[in-house]
Amino acid sequence: MGRQRKNREFELIARHFAPLSAAEPGAFALTDDAAVLEIEPGRRLVVTTDTMVAGVHFLPENPAGTVAAKLLRVNLSDLAAMGAKPLAYTLSAALPETMEDGWLERFAQALAADQASFQVTLIGGDTVATPGPLTLTLCALGTVAEGRELRRSGARPGDTVYVSGTIGDAALGLAALRGELPGLAPELREALGERYLRPQPRIALGQRLSGLAHAAADISDGLVADLGHICAASGTGATVEAARIPLSPAGRAVLEADAERMTTVLAGGDDYELLFTAPPESADTLAGLSRELDLPLTAIGRIDETKGDGVRVIDENGRRIELVENGYRHFRS
Amino acid sequence: MGRQRKNREFELIARHFAPLSAAEPGAFALTDDAAVLEIEPGRRLVVTTDTMVAGVHFLPENPAGTVAAKLLRVNLSDLAAMGAKPLAYTLSAALPETMEDGWLERFAQALAADQASFQVTLIGGDTVATPGPLTLTLCALGTVAEGRELRRSGARPGDTVYVSGTIGDAALGLAALRGELPGLAPELREALGERYLRPQPRIALGQRLSGLAHAAADISDGLVADLGHICAASGTGATVEAARIPLSPAGRAVLEADAERMTTVLAGGDDYELLFTAPPESADTLAGLSRELDLPLTAIGRIDETKGDGVRVIDENGRRIELVENGYRHFRS
Repeated sequence: MGRQRKNREFELIARHFAPLSAAEPGAFALTDDAAVLEIEPGRRLVVTTDTMVAGVHFLPENPAGTVAAKLLRVNLSDLAAMGAKPLAYTLSAALPETMEDGWLERFAQALAADQASFQVTLIGGDTVATPGPLTLTLCALGTVAEGRELRRSGARPGDTVYVSGTIGDAALGLAALRGELPGLAPELREALGERYLRPQPRIALGQRLSGLAHAAADISDGLVADLGHICAASGTGATVEAARIPLSPAGRAVLEADAERMTTVLAGGDDYELLFTAPPESADTLAGLSRELDLPLTAIGRIDETKGDGVRVIDENGRRIELVENGYRHFRS
Repeated sequence: MGRQRKNREFELIARHFAPLSAAEPGAFALTDDAAVLEIEPGRRLVVTTDTMVAGVHFLPENPAGTVAAKLLRVNLSDLAAMGAKPLAYTLSAALPETMEDGWLERFAQALAADQASFQVTLIGGDTVATPGPLTLTLCALGTVAEGRELRRSGARPGDTVYVSGTIGDAALGLAALRGELPGLAPELREALGERYLRPQPRIALGQRLSGLAHAAADISDGLVADLGHICAASGTGATVEAARIPLSPAGRAVLEADAERMTTVLAGGDDYELLFTAPPESADTLAGLSRELDLPLTAIGRIDETKGDGVRVIDENGRRIELVENGYRHFRS
């Protein structure tokens, strides 16, 4: 690597990223070979990582601030799904030479705002040049009390299946951003787009579910797919009642205009709500937690004994809805 | 992201990467939202990350095995430079669609071999598609006893400056791989190339230097640049005697044929040897450690009071050698 380019990278790190590490003395202002962190006794380290590529995971024209927010928040959502408390993160950026000067500044400003909201600090990273698209990798670290992590594998037959917040907004938001929902009121389009661009990691909920939920995951691949992951890990099946899936006002408006969009709600990803299972006797505790956090927690189905069948989705008449590629239909039987 | 592509990524992770996580139960076979690791009481977590881009940090025609080895080892070298013991790592890969099928398999095989050598385990990662070049980010985790980390900032005037192994081989190896050393015997060219492609992280040395060295860094940017980092962090200067810099037989052969190549030795990077400072009274202990580890530890200079001057390199007559861009010359004064 040329000395000149190397110097540019040092300068970018010192200017944009070192200030983000100020709250953690063990980050050494990003000037040493590695960061050194204290893990409280009795707690375990939780580690997750995600990569986003311009043109694949975000649109190159998306503002730097929403790219930063999404990258950090999808990783924090993984920590939340384990019941972990965020601790710190590293950031690696492969930057195209054509990148506009102010981009990194706006990117770093958005990270600074999210760091304050989510109590997490940058502790290391790498900045390199690439002839390809902007490629960002974030590795998030959190901690959880020993034995209190939320796994995907703990679901038990008879458990109730819950989701936080409302479902489908992010995937509908992506459709809105792509211009696929022209009939929708502008303020509803905007609300959906915001859910896609700026997910809310359910960190407080995740920590409170530790010891309460049997199994948990965040909804990144889609409601049915992620419930399928829980079922596969737990050796169970699950039944979801489509009519119980909580929708936002914007989501309801889309479905009233086009019922076929239910497939987007069921199969679309990127909501970053928590999906979890808990025994029926926890219903009151969860209702109280929902009020306390001011966050809807909605029972949408149950965990079944049946293993081979995976996730079944049924309509209000108990008829099975089958998801097919690019659409859904009622199950023929 | 299309469901089909997503499924391909799950499949790649299950086939190539999940087996690499088998030794760590807290990796959950890479099927949960995050990994959960135990950190022994009294130890701190050490975190570092590096990104490599095809065409920038390695040649696209380099074998998958050497790319894997370099990516893991440069990160382990950062852990070594902190005095840390490797624990685990995450890997994020942005894969071009054109990538040949066997590449990931050979890449994973090389990681498996290095995991066994260096006692470290894959615990998480992400695999995504990119329209750009292959981009790999590795985040390495290690542990160090509380207060025993090796910093860059501890050098004191009067300290002796040491390096492990031999210096310049990696940069000369890159020159050899580029065909710039046609006069060199093939076996020496190959030995140098190997040093560039497959660095040896000095993990055992790093852990033993903890509590013995005042400051340490690994040589990634180049001997003079990395010593400059130690000086800047410590608020000192340093003097290096060029004639004391340890060279390999291949390195000596290159310099005998072309004395100007000393600039490559002084300024070239990628050796991943440890550079450290220790008080003169530690000389005997370090000599014993060198014998025990069967690894040369060579005194090449000293830490100076003089702050503004940075790193001075002198020849055997005490005359200052000035490094200039793309070359070096004797200092005119």
